Amino acid sequence: MVHSQKAMNSQVGKVLDHLKGRSITHIFFVACGGSSAVMYPNKYIMDREAKFVSSDVYSSNEFIHRNPKKLGENALVVLCSMSGTTPETVKAATFARSKGAVTVGFTNEEGSPLAQESEFVVKYEWGDQANAIDTNLGTLYQLTMGVLNVLEGNNKYEKMLSSLANLQRVFEIAAKQYEASAQQFAQDYKDEKVIYTMASGANYGIAYSFAICILMEMQWIHSNAIHSGEYFHGPFEIIDKNTPFIILLGLDETRPLDERALDFSKKYGEKLVVLDAKDLDLDGIDSELQGYVAPLVLNYVLRKYAERLADARNHPLSKRRYMWKVEY
Amino acid sequence: MVHSQKAMNSQVGKVLDHLKGRSITHIFFVACGGSSAVMYPNKYIMDREAKFVSSDVYSSNEFIHRNPKKLGENALVVLCSMSGTTPETVKAATFARSKGAVTVGFTNEEGSPLAQESEFVVKYEWGDQANAIDTNLGTLYQLTMGVLNVLEGNNKYEKMLSSLANLQRVFEIAAKQYEASAQQFAQDYKDEKVIYTMASGANYGIAYSFAICILMEMQWIHSNAIHSGEYFHGPFEIIDKNTPFIILLGLDETRPLDERALDFSKKYGEKLVVLDAKDLDLDGIDSELQGYVAPLVLNYVLRKYAERLADARNHPLSKRRYMWKVEY
Repeated sequence: MVHSQKAMNSQVGKVLDHLKGRSITHIFFVACGGSSAVMYPNKYIMDREAKFVSSDVYSSNEFIHRNPKKLGENALVVLCSMSGTTPETVKAATFARSKGAVTVGFTNEEGSPLAQESEFVVKYEWGDQANAIDTNLGTLYQLTMGVLNVLEGNNKYEKMLSSLANLQRVFEIAAKQYEASAQQFAQDYKDEKVIYTMASGANYGIAYSFAICILMEMQWIHSNAIHSGEYFHGPFEIIDKNTPFIILLGLDETRPLDERALDFSKKYGEKLVVLDAKDLDLDGIDSELQGYVAPLVLNYVLRKYAERLADARNHPLSKRRYMWKVEY
Repeated sequence: MVHSQKAMNSQVGKVLDHLKGRSITHIFFVACGGSSAVMYPNKYIMDREAKFVSSDVYSSNEFIHRNPKKLGENALVVLCSMSGTTPETVKAATFARSKGAVTVGFTNEEGSPLAQESEFVVKYEWGDQANAIDTNLGTLYQLTMGVLNVLEGNNKYEKMLSSLANLQRVFEIAAKQYEASAQQFAQDYKDEKVIYTMASGANYGIAYSFAICILMEMQWIHSNAIHSGEYFHGPFEIIDKNTPFIILLGLDETRPLDERALDFSKKYGEKLVVLDAKDLDLDGIDSELQGYVAPLVLNYVLRKYAERLADARNHPLSKRRYMWKVEY
């Protein structure tokens, strides 16, 4: 098959050009909810790859009030909000900029407050028409690997670009592959009051997003994203034949944690939904980067699970009782 | 009243002496479950106070498999396990040491595997007879503020020592103050299937510990520790008149996040358990450090809540179905 060749996002390119002349020692990944969750795999990449640059992920308002001492001219602050109007994230951009940090706002709306308050803007695409490389996760990965390249000479940047160029095809294959499973999931779990998610490493943020945004926010189902390593130090006492768990198995270095959690869960639980990245067709994704890219695909597949669940429950993903409706 | 004067832990002192001759740029806080949760407020202190040294908190097995690139001779790895036998934490000590990092194992058992695998050991006390300054949180705070003093000249170390020396008295006053509330909590919530906890900043780890160790592990009650800032970006859609939330209000800089979460919860929820650190008698705790010390007191109070809940449910805190009983 023909693999796509796609150049990096030109707005990401501008940030990278600017960073060539800066001394950056720390990256803050700052956003809220689902946009915060997409920062987690970027932190994973930083931890695995960065020799000198350290990094943190914070919810926007925590970032502002915690006011980390390292926030200053040597910091890069990466922010994300789809609408660009999330008040805490907009305020975080203003705050970070006032401290002299380099700020990059990822948003779907180029004229939004976040875009205005950030020194650099990356517009990302969203929805059914978007190409994977242009989404929030796709553009963030370009930036993260690009920053590692510019600041530390990391050589995986080009491989990441070509992998992301092939990602849309991977998404489409996965969507077909998991269509029946998504339907089955919806039928089997539509009446559950509690559904846990579990993952580790590069995939933890995806489990977090599904727990707090899909299940709690959009479906009003109780949830908690359990870390597969923490599972054995408390949470596993909750599992029994009636307690559903969605378990993600990644391809990154922490996969053994997920496998162990799954093995145990199979013994004492019966309601297990397993998404194993080993089952994905990742042709076109560089073998060295498949662990990093897997969460993007699992995230895409889980969105299909969410859509089928919403259908089966007659509870649209857009339904809210408080968000955007009342004061908060 | 007479305020105690207590010298620092001599084992902590040995670590600090050693660090005077080392170049440390990063601290890894590594443990599992409840021992991991006590690392969170230490990370909060590092973020607020450290000008140069960066830090991360990892569950032990995540730490080993993630294998952060910055783990090496310039890293300090702080580990904790009460029994000193937690396999992942023992292995993390061995792993970190093999990478040339300085390792400090906090444990209640001086001859334990963790003590043997760590370059430095800090024995902490535990249980009803322990003085607050000698517990896991008390000794960890001595180390964290001591490290900041040695590496960066931070001047809050002495204040922390004298505050911790007075902490046991604060615990005892708080225990009496909250006795009736703990009883009431147990009666009101003993039949609940789900209880959420919520906090931010220095107190988040305490909420996390109560959710995964007390509620899920020891009481088999569904739970999730919601971050007060993240609440408005997903989780808040779950609250209604029937959904219980334990909300912690701290004295640290992120208190406004907790206040906002409480204000909203009061409008749409009815089952709210509020622990507000403003109600504590913190006489003897340096005013500059009360935000850092509050989580230790809230943690102590919550243990009383747990004990009363266990009594009311006839479900002892020591009861397990899997932990220490089956293979995992």
